[in-house]
Amino acid sequence: MSIPDIKHSPPYYAVIFSSRLNQDAGQDYQQMAQKMEALASTQDGYLAMESVRQPDGRGITVSYWKDSESIQVWKQNLDHLMAQEMGREQWYQQYSVSVSRVERQYGFQQSNEI
Amino acid sequence: MSIPDIKHSPPYYAVIFSSRLNQDAGQDYQQMAQKMEALASTQDGYLAMESVRQPDGRGITVSYWKDSESIQVWKQNLDHLMAQEMGREQWYQQYSVSVSRVERQYGFQQSNEI
Repeated sequence: MSIPDIKHSPPYYAVIFSSRLNQDAGQDYQQMAQKMEALASTQDGYLAMESVRQPDGRGITVSYWKDSESIQVWKQNLDHLMAQEMGREQWYQQYSVSVSRVERQYGFQQSNEI
Repeated sequence: MSIPDIKHSPPYYAVIFSSRLNQDAGQDYQQMAQKMEALASTQDGYLAMESVRQPDGRGITVSYWKDSESIQVWKQNLDHLMAQEMGREQWYQQYSVSVSRVERQYGFQQSNEI
């Protein structure tokens, strides 16, 4: 997944999900993560998502949403609730969720010219 | 670096720095990143930082600050400005910076009890 190209201008919302996986979080976890990512992208208010994970199990996923209400609805989605429960029971050693309002955004793209 | 344990209650600020490194970003980049992380931690308003990078060069670093002003001051720090310039010239293929106000935060810690 590339750095998200969000067409929407701030303000919008970002959910910072920082986590550490157990050693036994394997292919079943990967499949669930992909399923939830696909499901999130169909939700009202979804803008984008980016996810990075190190081989040692530490990861940060940031999802971007139009407003705070969309995040609440997604958090309560039944399939997502089930995935959250499985995550706590089986896959996550630790996680932190920060819901934040993006006030400004800027970026850099390397030029390919010589 | 572990998931940051921020004693401060929301609201506070998070800077989401999402980046993709060039293939030639090696030890010199690592050293500069460590130096900037150490320098950031001495700045007024600094709360915490967490950073994750994949072997393919994609990374997300989130730094947490007491207020928006602290972020502005850190952005304009002279050593940091120099590092930003070197980053654009030598190390980063692409990056995105989102400055956001954390409204709520919650977490999970696996119990070690059986």
